[in-house]
Amino acid sequence: MRVLGLDPGTATTGFAVAEKVGGVMKPVTYGTILTTPEKTDRERLVDIYNDLNTVIDTYKPDTVAMEKLFFSKNQTTGIAVAKACGVMQLVCAFRGLEVKEYTPSAVKLSVVGYGNAEKKQVQYMVCKLFNLKETPKPDDAADALALCACRLSDM
Amino acid sequence: MRVLGLDPGTATTGFAVAEKVGGVMKPVTYGTILTTPEKTDRERLVDIYNDLNTVIDTYKPDTVAMEKLFFSKNQTTGIAVAKACGVMQLVCAFRGLEVKEYTPSAVKLSVVGYGNAEKKQVQYMVCKLFNLKETPKPDDAADALALCACRLSDM
Repeated sequence: MRVLGLDPGTATTGFAVAEKVGGVMKPVTYGTILTTPEKTDRERLVDIYNDLNTVIDTYKPDTVAMEKLFFSKNQTTGIAVAKACGVMQLVCAFRGLEVKEYTPSAVKLSVVGYGNAEKKQVQYMVCKLFNLKETPKPDDAADALALCACRLSDM
Repeated sequence: MRVLGLDPGTATTGFAVAEKVGGVMKPVTYGTILTTPEKTDRERLVDIYNDLNTVIDTYKPDTVAMEKLFFSKNQTTGIAVAKACGVMQLVCAFRGLEVKEYTPSAVKLSVVGYGNAEKKQVQYMVCKLFNLKETPKPDDAADALALCACRLSDM
């Protein structure tokens, strides 16, 4: 079972693909879907739509784990991220992929065992679980890999 | 110039198509795109994607006026509406349609001349402007027609 982890954003969406082989978690790839602020909001949604389709074409995941949105103080950013998230969920629906959403605290609880864990602790455990020498960069990619770990633990 | 007005929602999206003929505003159609709560969120996004494409295929608008989102107290509903809105903006981008967003108070100011106008006043003016005997039902369709009026006044 191959999991695609998605940490949605408008400028930067972290993604990661991972699987369990013989009970051991293995990373397949991780990276970011980037959009440029020079484009309109609608053009950026089209870029996210196309790039996510390319990631799915390339790595052929069986299921998706996505960060569940909640709103911080910045409403404008929150609305833009939710629009991007809607487009990603549309892509997953078109590709027949189930999406499980996890709150940041559910990911922390699953990966570190503590819902209020610091980002560094999550990154440390992501390296341990996937046997990585260095923390994936940028943070969005590491967060996406943590989502994969959370989903793989759920299986 | 034919305008498509969209009042986005997850369960009910109001839509209206209108144009100016010899300086007079004429409604072409109005109605709703409905989705059922029995479907998953992702299936509902697919329904919105398909139904909006059908509206565009049928009525061939030249431009789109959409209600600009802001968040009320209910975050969960707000996030779901923003996701639907993202899908609608993606459809418009794919169809090469420009989207202008208007806040509810901008619509009220344009249609009634007062940004804090009551819904009834807006509906009264929508009937006047489009020469309608009765207020379009449901309210979402009337709101979409008000968005058309606002956009047509902007031209």
